Amino acid sequence: MKIAPLSGFPEWLPDGRIVEQRILDTLRQTFELHGFSGIETRAVEPLDQLLRKGETSKEVYLLNRLQGGDSQDAELGLHFDLTVPLARYVLEHAGKLDFPFKRYQIQKVWRGERPQDGRFREFIQADVDVVGADALAFHHEIELPLVMVDALSKLPIPRVVVRASNRKVAQGFYEAIGIEDVAETLRIVDKLDKVGAGAVVEMLAEGVGASEEQAKLALALAEISGTDASVAERITSLGHTSRMLEEGLDELVRLIEGANELLPGSVVADLRIARGLDYYTGSVFESTMIGHEDLGSVCSGGRYDSLVSDGKRTYPGVGLSIGVSRIISRLLARALVTPSRKVPTCVLVAVNSEDERRHAEQTAMFLRRRGISSDVSPSSQKFGKQIRFADRRGIPFVWFTTEEGEQVKDIRSGEQVAADPTTWEPPAQDLYPGLNEGL
Amino acid sequence: MKIAPLSGFPEWLPDGRIVEQRILDTLRQTFELHGFSGIETRAVEPLDQLLRKGETSKEVYLLNRLQGGDSQDAELGLHFDLTVPLARYVLEHAGKLDFPFKRYQIQKVWRGERPQDGRFREFIQADVDVVGADALAFHHEIELPLVMVDALSKLPIPRVVVRASNRKVAQGFYEAIGIEDVAETLRIVDKLDKVGAGAVVEMLAEGVGASEEQAKLALALAEISGTDASVAERITSLGHTSRMLEEGLDELVRLIEGANELLPGSVVADLRIARGLDYYTGSVFESTMIGHEDLGSVCSGGRYDSLVSDGKRTYPGVGLSIGVSRIISRLLARALVTPSRKVPTCVLVAVNSEDERRHAEQTAMFLRRRGISSDVSPSSQKFGKQIRFADRRGIPFVWFTTEEGEQVKDIRSGEQVAADPTTWEPPAQDLYPGLNEGL
Repeated sequence: MKIAPLSGFPEWLPDGRIVEQRILDTLRQTFELHGFSGIETRAVEPLDQLLRKGETSKEVYLLNRLQGGDSQDAELGLHFDLTVPLARYVLEHAGKLDFPFKRYQIQKVWRGERPQDGRFREFIQADVDVVGADALAFHHEIELPLVMVDALSKLPIPRVVVRASNRKVAQGFYEAIGIEDVAETLRIVDKLDKVGAGAVVEMLAEGVGASEEQAKLALALAEISGTDASVAERITSLGHTSRMLEEGLDELVRLIEGANELLPGSVVADLRIARGLDYYTGSVFESTMIGHEDLGSVCSGGRYDSLVSDGKRTYPGVGLSIGVSRIISRLLARALVTPSRKVPTCVLVAVNSEDERRHAEQTAMFLRRRGISSDVSPSSQKFGKQIRFADRRGIPFVWFTTEEGEQVKDIRSGEQVAADPTTWEPPAQDLYPGLNEGL
Repeated sequence: MKIAPLSGFPEWLPDGRIVEQRILDTLRQTFELHGFSGIETRAVEPLDQLLRKGETSKEVYLLNRLQGGDSQDAELGLHFDLTVPLARYVLEHAGKLDFPFKRYQIQKVWRGERPQDGRFREFIQADVDVVGADALAFHHEIELPLVMVDALSKLPIPRVVVRASNRKVAQGFYEAIGIEDVAETLRIVDKLDKVGAGAVVEMLAEGVGASEEQAKLALALAEISGTDASVAERITSLGHTSRMLEEGLDELVRLIEGANELLPGSVVADLRIARGLDYYTGSVFESTMIGHEDLGSVCSGGRYDSLVSDGKRTYPGVGLSIGVSRIISRLLARALVTPSRKVPTCVLVAVNSEDERRHAEQTAMFLRRRGISSDVSPSSQKFGKQIRFADRRGIPFVWFTTEEGEQVKDIRSGEQVAADPTTWEPPAQDLYPGLNEGL
């Protein structure tokens, strides 16, 4: 009986998990360094919460109990992102949270999409958001992408470029040139990279009734990018303006200049970004990994003013989300990062005979008490076989009890020295599995 | 609009998550110290895999795509434990794993049960298992409970007592006294704590046709416990024997003596344990937290010889599982453990005015580079308000830029001293949130 993998549900071997775990730990540590609190939300949400966002409704996995549920049970689905659960969490616990509420959340999400390279049905997202009560200062729109730039720069991955635009710029510009259906225009321009300029002009004509002149202006906007105030000048020089456009340009320039002053080269303005989701109201972000642009955006987000509201108060926020599984599946598939060993174990304690197993167990216990990961050989076969057991897993040291006393062998160099399990220390770089980057 | 919590799906506030995260980290570190590799399996399994175990089928959550799936999609359900996924993972990846395969796995599982105190529909389990190819030495049945004893003893929780029995002892004894339906007898005796001896005698008569004499012997067996070989003597003195009983007693004594020799007081033999699940074939384990016996077992498992088989090879294993959410919900509900602050932040950098925000951001950057979690005040209100922002969250230090230069204030003592953000260090105990145990 052979068991086939389930398409769209990635799963790693133990060595791949070492890479994934290290990346998750680095993200967590960086988010906490920036003062974000970790939370986990339950995997399920009531269906009415999940469908509020509209366009992803087709991707929701519904839950049914095999034997049928209580009729009063609300209809539940698995969350497909971590933003909708955050909105619900903030409303449910608002009285017990301190605002502005800075939270990170690293969890699996599920989408019933057709699986393809970099698109999964189950995958990990790592989100940071800051949510204010009634108001949220603009400087958080500079802070949040910089948190992600800091986190991404610490990962063993190719460089990620964070690009930014502003919903008000796109909307203000489209309105200024006389296009009315802004949401549909955003959706069409968003396809520019995939379908090319010619097709976008056609789709704009068909979809929102744009004239050739309007479509050309929309494309001209989408071609503007840069890292300073000249971006705003080039947009203004297209010859159309509106109050919303002015406001958006002011924000975009403050964001780009503020981010690059604190961290040069961190954020690039790119007017091609036109995130279609209706809930973004200010800055929007997308990011690609250099050399892996085919993966699509690996870190996206933006400012939302009205996602979270209980009717009385609104909770504006800004946040970004890293597509962790998308990055890791690429790293592992192309062996861009490999761990120095397949197990956490630093020392294998050899067993002379089953009668002496207890002595080996005690040796391992002494080592573990000082934080050295140790395993005891499962069999008391010939030493050659015990060493091969270690070698196959990449365990660097084998511990022996010999007639001359306790000894430890570095099986890479073959060097064997006398050692005391209550004091011996491995070299620092051998304590944990290292990561080899073949970028 | 008020949002009600979803019964059975626990969720913590940020301070509770600090406790949970610390416990999960300690478990992970301990499992890795013992040489176990971490894996994660996908949350879903094909329904036929989930139903192999039989008795928990009623608890499975099935997945349906809202818009209907491809007809060739296999029927999927959420996993209800981490043992069935391990069995499938071992079979799917057997060619790429090294045996004996030692793995730990800390993940959420889902059961559509009626929620009650300590019983959830979504909860975290932490499992360790070792799986052999074709054979697995007995000494792993001593190793695995000791890993859990080590892990549990490092947690900020009341002491947990691990109790052990052996399926062969119970089965061999019941068969020796003439009871034929061993599985049903195990299930009935398992209820002893809940329903009492009288009811068990009645249920044994009705359920498996046991005479009063047989029922009394079954109860006499269940009353035996201890930490040495005398347990076997007392069982033998009940006057019935069989080959399977002898084998089981030999294993039970080796387990109890071996475990207590390595770690005195670690494992207690308790013949009351009669885990009903059919797949255990040797040692079985249950554990209660002292003073919280009403929670039921918080760490259970055992030896299984035939759970994992591909028809050609079998993969015997032994493993235990900690019910993490059950423990944490009790800790939090009774405030047995509280974090010293609600956020990871060690330093809040005050902002003199919005014009000087960038300077404060740079100060925070210097601190973060040396691993000190820092946040910048979201507003440039009066210092009293900024200090209150820190105080409400439990942030111990506030950083000021004054006319006399950079200064840091311990807001607990009020002491304020000159400091350089590129060299200043907080006391070690303030670097991360601590845990206060009110046990």
